Amino acid sequence: MDLFEVATPLLARGKRLRAGFLAAGWRSYGGQPMAAAEIQAGAGLELFQLAALVHDDLIDASPTRRGLASAHRQFQSLHGRNRMISDGNTFGAAGALLLGDLLLVAAESELQAALAAIPGNVNRARVVFEKMMAEVTAGQYLDIYAQSAPWSDNPDVDLDRAKRVIRAKSARYSVEHPLALGACMAGANYEEEEAIREVGSPVGEAFQLRDDVLSVFGDPKQTGKPSGDDLREGKRTVLVTLAMARASGSEAKFLKEKIGDPSLNDRDIAKIKEILVNCGALAEVESLIDARAAAATTAMERLDLDADAEAFLKTLTSAAITRVQ
Amino acid sequence: MDLFEVATPLLARGKRLRAGFLAAGWRSYGGQPMAAAEIQAGAGLELFQLAALVHDDLIDASPTRRGLASAHRQFQSLHGRNRMISDGNTFGAAGALLLGDLLLVAAESELQAALAAIPGNVNRARVVFEKMMAEVTAGQYLDIYAQSAPWSDNPDVDLDRAKRVIRAKSARYSVEHPLALGACMAGANYEEEEAIREVGSPVGEAFQLRDDVLSVFGDPKQTGKPSGDDLREGKRTVLVTLAMARASGSEAKFLKEKIGDPSLNDRDIAKIKEILVNCGALAEVESLIDARAAAATTAMERLDLDADAEAFLKTLTSAAITRVQ
Repeated sequence: MDLFEVATPLLARGKRLRAGFLAAGWRSYGGQPMAAAEIQAGAGLELFQLAALVHDDLIDASPTRRGLASAHRQFQSLHGRNRMISDGNTFGAAGALLLGDLLLVAAESELQAALAAIPGNVNRARVVFEKMMAEVTAGQYLDIYAQSAPWSDNPDVDLDRAKRVIRAKSARYSVEHPLALGACMAGANYEEEEAIREVGSPVGEAFQLRDDVLSVFGDPKQTGKPSGDDLREGKRTVLVTLAMARASGSEAKFLKEKIGDPSLNDRDIAKIKEILVNCGALAEVESLIDARAAAATTAMERLDLDADAEAFLKTLTSAAITRVQ
Repeated sequence: MDLFEVATPLLARGKRLRAGFLAAGWRSYGGQPMAAAEIQAGAGLELFQLAALVHDDLIDASPTRRGLASAHRQFQSLHGRNRMISDGNTFGAAGALLLGDLLLVAAESELQAALAAIPGNVNRARVVFEKMMAEVTAGQYLDIYAQSAPWSDNPDVDLDRAKRVIRAKSARYSVEHPLALGACMAGANYEEEEAIREVGSPVGEAFQLRDDVLSVFGDPKQTGKPSGDDLREGKRTVLVTLAMARASGSEAKFLKEKIGDPSLNDRDIAKIKEILVNCGALAEVESLIDARAAAATTAMERLDLDADAEAFLKTLTSAAITRVQ
């Protein structure tokens, strides 16, 4: 069936970051490595992530994802190949919308099945992922709302908004919630859940800041997304809003004009990169990342994990922050 | 928050048909009327239904729903009122997409909470609604696929496809699955679940056939949707595909030309109605509805319900089939 044909290769290419952090939370509180619950819940998070990406790409009209054509583009091609009547764009959008819905339903099924496989009360774990799903969706709305709002005269307002978006939309979702979910599934109590969230929160923020940097400065061959996508879409990232506050008058004017312009060319992007570097915004984001990494390390020491669990969590954390894709 | 502002009035105006059938299934096997589980699961089904409608309206570019502007139109208006930059259409579509996602997540939460409130094994009930959600989404894809496929030279092929769409997309979903879910929640065994499905299946088909008729012949003031919407969208309903098979050559040609044309005017619609009546397609659909109603009555007698439960189920069934909205 078409829906599987589109979803399967996209699923195969994920980094499995969220499944990884879920496993780290699970193992940190005594969960057995590779237990059925760990694997099913990890699959659930990865399905949910792809659902969110398919819908995001549709909203942003992004042409590529994970080095492949994005879902709506794949449905559009299928429309052409099958010589269907009606408009190919419309069909592509409808296909991607429904595929995202189906992935969301599948994600819930996997997560529920994982919880059903664990003895004892799993209500806390259920609350974690339900809140996570609602939060990431509302955060995504905040994001498109911010993108459509005029730039404020006060750059601090924009910066504050950028930080709230990043927190709601992806920082907590990418790392903190998966860690907490795994921990709750393994029976962590309230204090233990909070303690592991103290690790997850700064790692998640650093992860997202790294994502913003990679979207502008990363190698498209590694990231699987064209360079400058966030700039064309007008994403109000911390990197960009910091630059608005730090750049000179004429440079800030250039940024306001160019960011959000879908027809941005390579020369514009090169100039924007130059501004981001010269005004110090890039260095400031890198130092924010370092500070978050240090906060995570301190919080991790307080957890007092056994050696295997700690090594696993450290490896994942450093992969999330220092990655190139 | 915007998302609630759009969702609440739309939610308030539903017919609560699915919640009703869920309650009928629940009460048929001994569930207490108005128990928390009945109410929460009913709320879950209604949230899921609105999620599906919000996404459907976006796919079909429908301007109205339940007598209000459809969700994407409401977000578009909000964009205008707030004098936002960026394109209003795009913002409206993104808002509706995310609202549908959020409603889907909320639906799952309510359904899970309902199951958590019931003692004993609820895995069968969980499977019912997970399958229902996946089936309706896949069915919706089948529907847009059918709409985009060229008309076949053999009307029976189209008619067969129309019947499969109706079954997957809405007949089972509107009545049969809610009934089965309520029954399983109340502890019905496998045979009992199958027996109540025998009632729900024909009622659901009759319900959907009635929907197709109302979409063309209904009073827009009552249905909350403009007359002829299905015709403009090119929906391959049983009513329309029957007419393709029964109408004379020149009439069939007129139908093929006009159905799916977004610019259909009132005169075209009047002419199409005339064809649907004169070729006998409308009468044939009405007699299909009668046959389904009779099958439901026979199946209901076999259930051997207590008087209250039977009266409740009969009232709902007749409301679903003879409704004008």
